[in-house]
Amino acid sequence: MEIAKLGEFGLIDRLTADIKPNNESTKYGVGDDCAVLHYPDSEVLVTTDMLMEGVHFDLTYIDLQHLGWKSAMVNISDIFAMNGTPRQMTVSLAISKRFTVEDLEQFYSGLRMACDKWGVDIVGGDTTSSYTGLAISITCIGEARKEDIVYRNGARETDLVCVSGDLGAAYMGLQLLEREKAVYYQMVDEAKRKSVAGGSPASTNPSRVDGGSPASTNPARVDGGSPAVNIPDFQPDFSGKEYLLQRQLKTEARGDIIQRLREAGIRPTAMMDISDGLSSELMHICKQSHVGCRIFEKQIPIDYQTAVMAEELNMNVTTCALNGGEDYELLFTVPIGDHAKIQEIDDVRLIGHITHESLGQVLVTRDDQEFELKAQGWNPLSSESNAKHA
Amino acid sequence: MEIAKLGEFGLIDRLTADIKPNNESTKYGVGDDCAVLHYPDSEVLVTTDMLMEGVHFDLTYIDLQHLGWKSAMVNISDIFAMNGTPRQMTVSLAISKRFTVEDLEQFYSGLRMACDKWGVDIVGGDTTSSYTGLAISITCIGEARKEDIVYRNGARETDLVCVSGDLGAAYMGLQLLEREKAVYYQMVDEAKRKSVAGGSPASTNPSRVDGGSPASTNPARVDGGSPAVNIPDFQPDFSGKEYLLQRQLKTEARGDIIQRLREAGIRPTAMMDISDGLSSELMHICKQSHVGCRIFEKQIPIDYQTAVMAEELNMNVTTCALNGGEDYELLFTVPIGDHAKIQEIDDVRLIGHITHESLGQVLVTRDDQEFELKAQGWNPLSSESNAKHA
Repeated sequence: MEIAKLGEFGLIDRLTADIKPNNESTKYGVGDDCAVLHYPDSEVLVTTDMLMEGVHFDLTYIDLQHLGWKSAMVNISDIFAMNGTPRQMTVSLAISKRFTVEDLEQFYSGLRMACDKWGVDIVGGDTTSSYTGLAISITCIGEARKEDIVYRNGARETDLVCVSGDLGAAYMGLQLLEREKAVYYQMVDEAKRKSVAGGSPASTNPSRVDGGSPASTNPARVDGGSPAVNIPDFQPDFSGKEYLLQRQLKTEARGDIIQRLREAGIRPTAMMDISDGLSSELMHICKQSHVGCRIFEKQIPIDYQTAVMAEELNMNVTTCALNGGEDYELLFTVPIGDHAKIQEIDDVRLIGHITHESLGQVLVTRDDQEFELKAQGWNPLSSESNAKHA
Repeated sequence: MEIAKLGEFGLIDRLTADIKPNNESTKYGVGDDCAVLHYPDSEVLVTTDMLMEGVHFDLTYIDLQHLGWKSAMVNISDIFAMNGTPRQMTVSLAISKRFTVEDLEQFYSGLRMACDKWGVDIVGGDTTSSYTGLAISITCIGEARKEDIVYRNGARETDLVCVSGDLGAAYMGLQLLEREKAVYYQMVDEAKRKSVAGGSPASTNPSRVDGGSPASTNPARVDGGSPAVNIPDFQPDFSGKEYLLQRQLKTEARGDIIQRLREAGIRPTAMMDISDGLSSELMHICKQSHVGCRIFEKQIPIDYQTAVMAEELNMNVTTCALNGGEDYELLFTVPIGDHAKIQEIDDVRLIGHITHESLGQVLVTRDDQEFELKAQGWNPLSSESNAKHA
C-alpha cells in the first residue's frame, strides 16, 4: 500500500497503535509534543545513532525487518555499555517514495522484537519524507544507579582487559554479502549483454536493472524491482558461513554479559561497546583513562568461520578482529583482583592488561613481536565523516 | 577545510571542544557511549525531530547558521509546548562530501546560539556521512513538575482557545523565498542561453550551473558553487518583507509566553506548538480532548506584512494563517475563569472557545458563515509522508 493512501496520521496510528508502554518510568508515550518519563531514583542515560542508506546499510542485502532489529540493538548496546538498563526509545525515519506501508511495518516489526527482548518502550519519534533513500535516527534512554555507571575513563594500571563473544565476524559477514552481491551484478551484466545482442524486447528497458532495487541475497527486495532482462536464478553461496551472516544482520546487544557481571559481583572500571573495532575502542579507553594497554594477539577471540572466511579472502584475521566493526561486543576493564571471578564468566575472554600511559597501546603478536595499535575503523568512509560522539 | 583532513574524532573535538554543560541535571555530556542526566524531582520530557535537505529546508535560501538555529528551536519549542523547561539536546548530522569543516562550524554556531538563549546543554550526538544532502536529527530533553505538564488532551467545554504571536508569516516567508529563487533561476537560464548562443567557453560546462549549489538569496552558498556562466548580479527583492523572512529563517520558540503564563498564574488545560498549521493542531487538541471548537476568523492574529504578501500572491490570508506551518507559536486552552487574566498577557490572542464534541470544529468567518475546519498542513508532501508523532 502506498503511504499516501493512509495519510500522515493514519500511518503513525498503524505503526504505533498497539504499542503499550511497560516500564514504570514511562509516564506518557507516543501522541503528544513530548514523551514523559520519570526517574526519581536513578541517573538517566541518553544515546543516539543515525543510520543512512548506502553508508550504514544496503537494502540489497539486509531486509527491513533485520534493519529495524539492528537499528534498535545498536542503540540498546550503548546503554549496556554504560552498565545501564535500556527503557525507552524514540524512532525517527525519513523515507523516500519507493517505500510502502508494508515496508515500514516490516521495519517496525524488527524494531519492536528487539525492544521487546530488552523491555524497551517506543515512546515517540518522527516520520517524514526523504528525496533519496532511507534515514534512521534512534535515541535510546536508559537508567542506572549513579554508583553503577561505568564510563570510558575509569581504567587503571594493572586492570585486566576483557572482551565478550568473538570479534571480526560481523565484518566478515559484510565481506561475504559484498562478494555475493558482486557475483549477482556480474550475472546481471552478462544477461544484459546477451539480451542486447539477441535484440530481445526486454533489452529496451535496461534502465530497470540499474535503477530498480538490485536485490540479491534478499528475495523480498527482488520482488520490489525485478529486472526486465532475463536473469538466471541466483543462489548466493552462504553455506558454512551462517554465523557470519547472523553477526552482520542480526546484531545482539550483550545485556546478558552485563547481567552475568552483576551476578558475579564484578563492576568494570571502564567499558564500551565495540562498534568501530577493537583497536579504535581500546584507544578511546586508554586516551580517556590516561593509561596504556598491552593486548595479546593469541587471546583475541575469533570464531572458526571468521578465520576460514579471512583465509578465503586472503586477509589477516587478526586485522579483521582488530579493525572490523559492528560486533557490538563489550570491551571492559576489571581490577586485577577480579581475575579468578572473570575467568568463571561464560563467553568473556581476558585479552591483556592496562599499563602506564607512557607505554602506549601495544599488541603482542603470536611470535612475541610488539606493535603499536592503530585504529583504522571499520568504515571506509570513517576517516572522512563517520564519527560518533555519544 | 575538507572534513577528511580533520578525521572523525578531530571533527567532533573541534565542534564540541568548548561546550560546557551548565545545567545541574547534566551529569556527563559529550564523550562516552551515553550522556548521563539526573532528574530526581521532576518528569523528564523527550522530543525528537528530523529535518531532511530538500524536504524541510533548501540551502539555496537558508544558510547553515540559521539552519542550526532553527533545528534547535523547533525542538526546544516542543518542550515549551508541554509547559516544560528545555535542558539538554543531542544532535545527529549526516553530511555529504560537499560540506566543509567551516560549514559544520556555521551550523553549530547557530545551534549553540539557540541553545544558549534557552540554557540548553548539548550532550551528545552522532556525526556521520550521507550520499546525498544533509540530514539533521535532534532530540531535546527537558523537565517539568508532574502537576505542571500540559498535554493535548485536557481541553474542556467552555475553555477559551488562545494563540501567541501571529500566524501565516513563516509560510509567507517561504513563498517569498521561493519566488525570488524562481526569478534567479530564470536569470540563470537566460544567461545560459545567451552564453550558448555566443559560443563562449563557459558554455562548455553548463552542468556546473545545474549541479553546483544554485544559491540565490544567500551569498555564502554562491561562493561554494559559483556558476560557470556569467550571471548578472542578482539582488532579491525583500524590501518591506523583512518580518516574513525572519519568521521563516529565524524561528523563535515561545518560552517567553510560557514564562508570562506562569507569572500570571495561568495553567493551560491543553497546549501544542503550531508547526503544521493552526487547523491541524486544533484538530489534534479536539480529537485528543474529545471536544469541538469554535474559532473566529476575525480574531486570528495576522501581521500586516503577511496580509500584503498574501494579496500580492493572490492567496486568501486566512487560509495561509490556518494552514501555513512553521510559525511555532503556542496554541492553548485556558478555563473560562481566566478570561480577564489572559487578556492582560501581551502577545496572546483569544481566538475562540471549546465546545461539545458533537458540534465539531467550526470556523466562523467575518461575514458570520460557518465552515468545518479541515487540516491541510503546510508541507505539500505531508499527505504522503510528513508526519510527526511526538
